[in-house]
Formats: sequence, C-alpha cells, structure tokens
Amino acid sequence: MSGTFAFSRRDMLRAGAAGSAVIGTAALSPLARARMMPQDMDRAAFANAVRELKAVVGDEWVFADEASTVSYRKSFIPDLRGEHIPSGAVAPKSVEEVQAILRIANTYGLPMWPVSTGHNMGYGMATPASSGQMILDLKRMNRILDFDAELGTILVEPGVTYQQIHDYIEENDLPFWIDVPTVGPIVSMVGNTLERGVGYTPYGDHFFMQCGMEVCLADGSILKTGMGSIEKGNTWQAFKWGYGPYLDGLFTQSNFGVVTKLGMWLMPRPPVYKPFVARSANVEDVAAITDVIRPFRMNNLIPNGVLIMGALYQLAMFRRRSDIWQQAQPIPADVLKAEAKRNGLGMWNTYFALYGTEEIIAATEPILRAAFEGAGAEVLTDAEMNGNPWFEHHKTLMRGGMTLEEIGLVRWWGRNGGAVAFAPVAPAKGSETRGQTELATRIMNKWGFDYAPAYAVGGRELHHIIFLMFDKGDETSSANAEKCMDEMIREFGARGWAAYRSSVSTMDLVAQQYGQTNRDVNARIKQALDPNHIIAPGKQGIA
Amino acid sequence: MSGTFAFSRRDMLRAGAAGSAVIGTAALSPLARARMMPQDMDRAAFANAVRELKAVVGDEWVFADEASTVSYRKSFIPDLRGEHIPSGAVAPKSVEEVQAILRIANTYGLPMWPVSTGHNMGYGMATPASSGQMILDLKRMNRILDFDAELGTILVEPGVTYQQIHDYIEENDLPFWIDVPTVGPIVSMVGNTLERGVGYTPYGDHFFMQCGMEVCLADGSILKTGMGSIEKGNTWQAFKWGYGPYLDGLFTQSNFGVVTKLGMWLMPRPPVYKPFVARSANVEDVAAITDVIRPFRMNNLIPNGVLIMGALYQLAMFRRRSDIWQQAQPIPADVLKAEAKRNGLGMWNTYFALYGTEEIIAATEPILRAAFEGAGAEVLTDAEMNGNPWFEHHKTLMRGGMTLEEIGLVRWWGRNGGAVAFAPVAPAKGSETRGQTELATRIMNKWGFDYAPAYAVGGRELHHIIFLMFDKGDETSSANAEKCMDEMIREFGARGWAAYRSSVSTMDLVAQQYGQTNRDVNARIKQALDPNHIIAPGKQGIA
Repeated sequence: MSGTFAFSRRDMLRAGAAGSAVIGTAALSPLARARMMPQDMDRAAFANAVRELKAVVGDEWVFADEASTVSYRKSFIPDLRGEHIPSGAVAPKSVEEVQAILRIANTYGLPMWPVSTGHNMGYGMATPASSGQMILDLKRMNRILDFDAELGTILVEPGVTYQQIHDYIEENDLPFWIDVPTVGPIVSMVGNTLERGVGYTPYGDHFFMQCGMEVCLADGSILKTGMGSIEKGNTWQAFKWGYGPYLDGLFTQSNFGVVTKLGMWLMPRPPVYKPFVARSANVEDVAAITDVIRPFRMNNLIPNGVLIMGALYQLAMFRRRSDIWQQAQPIPADVLKAEAKRNGLGMWNTYFALYGTEEIIAATEPILRAAFEGAGAEVLTDAEMNGNPWFEHHKTLMRGGMTLEEIGLVRWWGRNGGAVAFAPVAPAKGSETRGQTELATRIMNKWGFDYAPAYAVGGRELHHIIFLMFDKGDETSSANAEKCMDEMIREFGARGWAAYRSSVSTMDLVAQQYGQTNRDVNARIKQALDPNHIIAPGKQGIA
Repeated sequence: MSGTFAFSRRDMLRAGAAGSAVIGTAALSPLARARMMPQDMDRAAFANAVRELKAVVGDEWVFADEASTVSYRKSFIPDLRGEHIPSGAVAPKSVEEVQAILRIANTYGLPMWPVSTGHNMGYGMATPASSGQMILDLKRMNRILDFDAELGTILVEPGVTYQQIHDYIEENDLPFWIDVPTVGPIVSMVGNTLERGVGYTPYGDHFFMQCGMEVCLADGSILKTGMGSIEKGNTWQAFKWGYGPYLDGLFTQSNFGVVTKLGMWLMPRPPVYKPFVARSANVEDVAAITDVIRPFRMNNLIPNGVLIMGALYQLAMFRRRSDIWQQAQPIPADVLKAEAKRNGLGMWNTYFALYGTEEIIAATEPILRAAFEGAGAEVLTDAEMNGNPWFEHHKTLMRGGMTLEEIGLVRWWGRNGGAVAFAPVAPAKGSETRGQTELATRIMNKWGFDYAPAYAVGGRELHHIIFLMFDKGDETSSANAEKCMDEMIREFGARGWAAYRSSVSTMDLVAQQYGQTNRDVNARIKQALDPNHIIAPGKQGIA
C-alpha cells in the first residue's frame, strides 16, 4: 500500500530501534507483529490519544496493548509484509462517543478504520488498508432502532448482525425475510451493505434495498440522508432519494464518514417458496447457463439473486482438499467432476427460486424448466435433492436463512485458514462467463491454486466471486497467493473486467483501473469532508 | 430567491438606469422582461463572454438578444417578481463545446443553467433558479450512442427525447419498452432522470433504472461514473455501482456537474400486457385504496408504478374548468363527482397493470381483484373501459407509450397556461393519503384553487403530485398561486411531509426543510467541485 499511513520496512525498523510501542521487528515473522503505530506519531502522543479515548469509552473498550489487539489483526488474506496491522482498537457505545473519538483522532492525527463487526471474510476482516490505523469497532452499537411492520423496513446500528435481525423477526413473528450474505449470522447488515455485498433472495442487491443513513462526519456533524432530517418525518426508511443530490452512495465503499445508522427494506414472506437447482455437467456449460438466466432476471421470472456455483467452491464448503486430492498441483478437471458427481453435484450448480402462490409458481415453473433443459441442465427440486447438503445450504440462503457453512472454505488447505476473494463484474452474458472462467483457471493453476468460482447474477450483471484458497501457514503459498491475486487483477483489468470490491491489500491497485478522474473527484470530496484524512485512509484507494 | 445571483427590484432599476443590455424596467409587466444579466456583471463583460461563446458554438447557437431569448423564459409557474429570467442561452453540439463553455463561464463568472430539452413542465421549464443565469441548452446533443439488445440498455445524450427512443425501438423492432414520464414525447430522458422523475411501468422509478453517467465538471474534466472509465470495459450500462463511493447520485437534482451522457435500463416487452383501473366512488376511499396497493407493490404482485388519479386531475386533461363549473370558488365535491361519473370516472381511479404470460396473469388477477373489491372499488379492464379516453391514456403510459395529453392541464383556466406542481412524499399508508388530501384540499380551496391530485405509489412510498392550476394572465391568480404554494410547502413540511422535487421558485424553501447539515454537506461538495459556482447556482437551494 502506498497510502498516506502505509508503513515501509525502513519505518518499521526505525520504530523498533527507537524503542517505540511497536511490537516486533524485521527478525520476527510478520504475523507476530501485533501492533504498529501510525506513521509520524510518537509514543507519547499515541499514549495521550489512548488516554483520551479511554476517558470517552472507558478503559475496557480501548485496546492498545499486544494481547488485546490480536483479534483485530486476524485475517485470512496474505499479508507477508505486515501492511495491514492496526495500532489498536476503540469500541464506542453511542454516536456521541463516535463524535468524541473523531475529535481526538483529528487532534492527534490518529487514523480510524471503522468496522461494524469486522467479518469482511474474503477481504481482510477488520484489518486496515495500511498499518498503524486504529480500528473503530462499532460492534457495541447493536440496537435495532425501528421496525415498521407495515412497510417491512428496519433501522439498525452497525453492530447488529443478520442473526440478530433474523431472531428479532422470529421472536416477533413478523411476515418478513432479511436477505443475508455469506456467513450472514456473524456479519453486520450495515457493514455488508456499505461494502455493497450481495445475497440470494429477490432483495439480493443490498445497496439497492438500503434506505436512509445516519453518518457521523469527520468533524462530528451528523448527517441524516434522504428523508432523515425532516422534522417529524416518518418517511426515512420509505423513500430512498430525498431532495437534492442523493448522498447515500458517497458513504458506501468509502472513507467519507462513519455510518452510524442504516435503513433497509425487508422482503415480504411469500405464501409459497420453491427452490431449484439446475445441474450442468461440464465446465463449458457456464456460457449457455448464463444466457438462459439473463432474460429471466431481466423480466423477473426469476426474481432472486441467482448463484452459479462451481463444483470446487461447493465441495470446499464441506470437504478438505486432502479428502479429494493429495498432490500439490491443481485438482484436474476429471477428478473434480467425479467427486462432484459422487456428491450429487454438477460442474456448475445454478440455484434459483420461485416465490408466490402455488398457482403463480405453477404458471412460471414450466417456462424456466424448458429453458434450462434446453441448455443441457437437469432441473431439480426438493423432490430429488432434499437432504443434499449443498441444496439445503442454498435452500436456506434463498429464503434468507442463517448458515455459516461457507466458512469451511478457509480450511481447504488445512488449519491455517487462508483465503482472499477477487470479484470482477461483467455483463450477464455467456461470452463473459466463458472468458472469465478460462482466464481465472489459467492464472490460478499457474500459481498452483484451485479455481473456486461462484457467479452471482443480478439484473443485468454478474459478480464473479473467485475464492483464492491458500495455506496461510506456508510462506510460499502466501507469496504465491499475493502474486496470483495481483496477476488476476491486472489481467482481468486489461480485458475490461474490474472488481466491484477489494481486499484491503489490493484496494489501490483496483482503484487505478477506474481511472484518474474518479480518483481526483474522490480526493476532492475527501478533502472537503475529512480534511485531516483521519477516517480510513487508503480505503478503496482514497487517501 | 435569495441565491447568489438573484436580482432585487433595486438591481433591476439600477441596471435599467445604467442603460445596460437588460430589457424592461419596473414599469413593464414582469413577463415583458426578456433578459436579465448576472449580478455584478457589466455590459462589456457580458458582451465579451457572448463573443467567446459564439466562437465556440457558432453565432447561431448563442441567444443573447430579446427576441431569441423569449422561448427560454417561458414557463407555467408564477413569477411575478421576475426572479427566473435568463440572460440568454447557448446550445453546444458536443462535450468538447460544453467544456469550452464552462471555461468561459469560469473566466467571466457567468453562471450556466443546464437544461436537456427544457420541458420540466410543472417545475419551471427551462428557467433558472435565479435571474441572470445563461441557459446551457443541451438539446443539440441528441444522439443515441449505444443500445445493447441483449441487455436492454441504452446510452444517450441529454437532448434525446423519449419519443426519439420510442421511435428507435420501433424502427429496429427491439423487444423493449422505455418508461416515460408525463408528456414524455417532448421530454429528455436525461433531464427527467436527473430530476428523479417517475413513470408508469415496472421501470417507473427512473433513477433506480439509471446505469452510468458521463459528467463534465466545472473545470472541464470528464468523469465517467460506475464502470465507465474501465479501459476496454463493456459493463458501463450493466452494473450501477462501480467501485469505491457510488457517485451518480451526486449529479441528480444538483449543480455539481453537467451530465453529458446517461445510461438506462429498458423493460423487456412482455408477451401479454393487461391494464386495469380500480374505480373508487368517494374522496375518502383513498386511504383504503392505498392500503390495498402497498402490500402488492412490496411483494411485486403489482409490478408497475401505480397511479391513484383524482377526478379533477383526470378531467383537467380533456376539459376546461368552464365546461364544468362557471363560478370563481373551487368546484364543489358533488359537482365534481357527478361530472366524473358522467365520464366513467370515480373520485379516485387507480391504474395498474399485469405483465407476463396468460397463465401468470390469470394466476395473479383474482388476488388483486378480491383485494380492491374488498376496499369498495370496481375493478375494470379493457372489456368495460375500452375507448374511455382516461383509461386509454393510462393504458398507453403503462406500456411506455407516447402521449402529450396531460399538457391539457395547463389550459384548465383558459389560454394563459398557469400550473405549478407540489410533490410531497410519504410512506404508502392510507393514513398518509387521507391526511395529505385533507390538508391540500383545505389550503388550495382557501386560495380559490381546485385540488388536482395524483398519487404515484412506488415500492413503499408515494409521491403526491398536486398540480396547482391557475390563470397566469391574471395577477391576482398568480399571486394567490405563489401564496398557496408557499403555504402548502410550509404546512406539509410542519407535518413531516417534504417535497421530493421543486419548481425553481421554491427550491430554497424546500431545501430548508431538509436541515442545515444537508445544506452544509452540499455546500462543501459544491465548493470542492465548482469553486466559482458557475453551474446552476441556487439549484435545489445549493449556492
């Protein structure tokens, strides 16, 4: 990272030599370095800042020693040069405490990296874009503030998990579903939505379904977007756009403010829910399947976020690599195909669902079946697949259910969980999925990795979620993972395929692909809203 | 208007006394004042600016004398104090010319008010928020730049009308519909979308369906939002959000840049289309009807933008007031009801449609019928209503068809077209429509106007489109229209109901209701992107 607060190796050595609070030196493994202070900040200033932070949130909610900081530096992504190591963490309980923390951050030039629950799994968990930033951990702000049972809208704080919302709905017997991302139970709805994550139901594009925000700006002022600042208003979670420039988008994938409340729409629970899987036997079938899905997503006959799951991504949920293949080189296609078949899976498994009444579903299903079968897929339902763990997994997700099963992916190579996601977007066309699958397979195999893909098909676009699984306990595997990720980003980018999101380790590289004018505009807005650059410098490449 | 460039009466007199190019004095009717120069700009500087502009676009595309400026100051809104009179207009043909114009604008401090085609009917047409601004008329930039027939996406310039897109689709026999706003044929798709207008099909929330922009910033730099600046990319119109902060929203209802290209999604033409009207006999039925519609919009059984059309709004399309009622006081409810009935209309007429196959529609229709009938409405289709001009009008709109019939509204009081819209938003709940209808009726009747309402029901919210029709040829009627609009905005605002959009005459008043922090944030972004404030000062209350 070349961000303002990035630490060079020389800086780290100098800090060590000066006897600062920074733990670890070049002699230790990078992973042993528990903390790093912000660049240009001396030990005394940091200690003063910590003292002031403790006065705001209480001693027990500031983490600034080695032991208490360990959990905040844990991630699955490769970080051989120790570029994503926080200086500590502070966990406020209220918006007022967030304001006070930002005031201190401005005073001391101590950058704050906000996280909601810090489970940004494939993208760096809670770790910052550059070492030395302090984690602004919002997990204690975990209230469900409003739930309108007529409108199916919710207003929550950042620490609220999908599990908490799910439980709230169940306990109050409300006729709604919440759309969840992967590993939803432990993930923050606010965090996922701000990263523009996607899910599995008709409400799968989370930012699309978001309505209203409260944002604490760097100077402590409180912005309520949309209809939120109308006195006596009750339209904040009903109408997205408000009046004048629509500002919510500014605070997604950004460092322009700290989002402290967020509204979301919930899907009405349908009378009948019917999940399907379309099973395709061959790798090259992905093109035909994509072309089948696109028109149905456009005309809404398939209303939900469709997942085309590659066999390897599927198997990795419940299997370790060594169960299937004991050699170092990537798993050959025939081995993968046979293992998939043994488990009731195809090389691609396309999950979609219908929601409505028996009559409406009966009128729709034959149209979909005919199209998928025309593309050579078998269309299967509960009748054939009930009990198959992969079918059950997606059946749960497509009705907004809770599952942590995809955490299994990080154990693919064993206990030293290593995984990082690359997620290029493209138009939902068969030529695109064919080309992306070929390119990703080639690059990943070159670096010794198995290609584990999922395509999430939205209205007209697809997110290709490539989960690069590696052995984080092995330096060579980690180094290769970094090189492979770098090559994939560059090679995909050269073909016009850029990522919609990025791990903290590649935010700047991806930002370059979106052009200098975008960077300049973001820099001007950053300067206008956070002139001391104390909120998450380096996030999405914005200093 | 208290905007930077507003002209006081004293300024106007002074300008006249100094023999400047400003036409008209306090002695003339305000409508006779064809032009006003920007505040603090002398005649020589203006003449130099005009000369430079002519060198960019050619003499024939700069309008800076009385005769050629007349069309640009025409609007239907009241403007007794001459607060919305442009100094002239300039019509570029290309993005490069827009860049050159903005350079000149910065040099001379000559503010530019961008319009696409200038048909912002209820909100001031092409006229600026404050007098003296020059109209940046983008009508000559009228190319359809791209049409992806697989994805159903389009990329157009600001001068492209809905009619032009409609014709393009017809001529190329493309299986798509474009969603149109009122008086779509003459309206710009870019302009309507940037004002966040709404329409009648399932794609009725235009900004929701917008995908990708090109924006010329005040300093001439060209920003392509979303996926637009990926080299070799083909995802610009497929994926809305891009990477990093989502910026498109900044350029809607704003003055942060000049949008020169805009992408939009088109609705796939369904095999079967079936329009309905639910006819309600009584004014108070609006509450029950709203509560019927909301769950169907939320669960998408009614997929389109539903209009609950008040009898008076409907009648005004094809009737003049004097056809129905010859007295000055507002039309009594019983007279209105009788006239509506004579024309096959209820006091509320709710238009919705189904799109799909015969089987899917057959499975859905009974559910909707039962619910509307349960709320006391008659549910009617082509079988009963074919040929009824109001049904035919909405039948056309709900399939993205072209009609100019709503222009009739401005002739309600005779030939001197006078009309201004007030559009508060609210949650889609019966209690809200009941309360808003009561309040609007009371205030409008107090000022001698007939209440002409339409409720556009989106997913969870409604836009209450109140069309205030007055006699622009009568000073008292114009003055009362201004006072009525002011009172409505304030009284609705006091109850938490604020407008989603505003005529140029009330932009600042509405902005106040959205709070000081919003204004401050907008001001900071404005300063960062347009430090000389040369783009549309005063728009949505942003100086």
